[in-house]
Amino acid sequence: MQLKGKKIAILLDDLFQDLEVYYPYLRFLEAGADVLLVGKTGTGPTYKGKYGLSITAHTTADKVKDQSFDAIFIPGGWAPDKMRLDRNILEIVRKAMAENRLVMVICHGGWVLASAGVLKGRHMTCYEAIIDDVKNAGATFEDAELVEDGNLLSSRKPMDLPALLRRAVERLSDA
Amino acid sequence: MQLKGKKIAILLDDLFQDLEVYYPYLRFLEAGADVLLVGKTGTGPTYKGKYGLSITAHTTADKVKDQSFDAIFIPGGWAPDKMRLDRNILEIVRKAMAENRLVMVICHGGWVLASAGVLKGRHMTCYEAIIDDVKNAGATFEDAELVEDGNLLSSRKPMDLPALLRRAVERLSDA
Repeated sequence: MQLKGKKIAILLDDLFQDLEVYYPYLRFLEAGADVLLVGKTGTGPTYKGKYGLSITAHTTADKVKDQSFDAIFIPGGWAPDKMRLDRNILEIVRKAMAENRLVMVICHGGWVLASAGVLKGRHMTCYEAIIDDVKNAGATFEDAELVEDGNLLSSRKPMDLPALLRRAVERLSDA
Repeated sequence: MQLKGKKIAILLDDLFQDLEVYYPYLRFLEAGADVLLVGKTGTGPTYKGKYGLSITAHTTADKVKDQSFDAIFIPGGWAPDKMRLDRNILEIVRKAMAENRLVMVICHGGWVLASAGVLKGRHMTCYEAIIDDVKNAGATFEDAELVEDGNLLSSRKPMDLPALLRRAVERLSDA
């Protein structure tokens, strides 16, 4: 129960990449963290992944945007294309970045960071299709299973999840 | 890298419950273990989960049945209905039980233990639909997220995975 007492939000919308929500969700529960599944404002509570796994959110972004989390996780799939339109999701992300909380992002999740306007001068990785978007938002790109830039941990794809979560659990245990 | 040097086999066939293969697979990789995905004799190398996630096996049961693993994992979904027909899968299971290796089973995976003939006098849990089958095979049943009976760790369903893997990683770290 390495992460007992830690509060972690996983951001959600339909067409999330199934493993990129379920792996961190189950993993943080395994470590004893208090994990909140946060859906887009005005939607939910049940979302479907790209492969059809469904998950029920605990709350929506408008209800928790003023809370502080020890960490937030932004999954990939097509969900980020929807989440980036929700100003409350973007506020949660901006607040976490401003407070230097651990922000984990994988795959297409980088789109949400681009729309939150928090990528200038940051170093990260992402799914190859959105490399141009994160660069145009001001980040430098590196092709690696895990890129660590201060509070920002990023990965490219589902098979990077072991590296991402190994480091995330370490970082949150030390915090 | 808590499990560096540990050799773990995950047994596979089509229609596996997606999370019940991917969660332990990614989790054991995260812990640095050497994870072998073992498909049914004469099939593979690529298998599809119930929800359509696919996974490529490293080998098949006939090729590794004489090897010893530190642990084996039997997932659920409909895959166990197929795996129990493969005598090499059953040999892998019998060998692991005879050698007192850690055997993890979840959901419908209990069918494979029933067909391997290793349940007499054992205590376990499983998905509710197969309670009669594991009892008729000689086991006693308990409704709990994790049942630990010596080398046998069992769980009921995907949301039990955090409890199962937390204990499995502990057990394998101590071994």
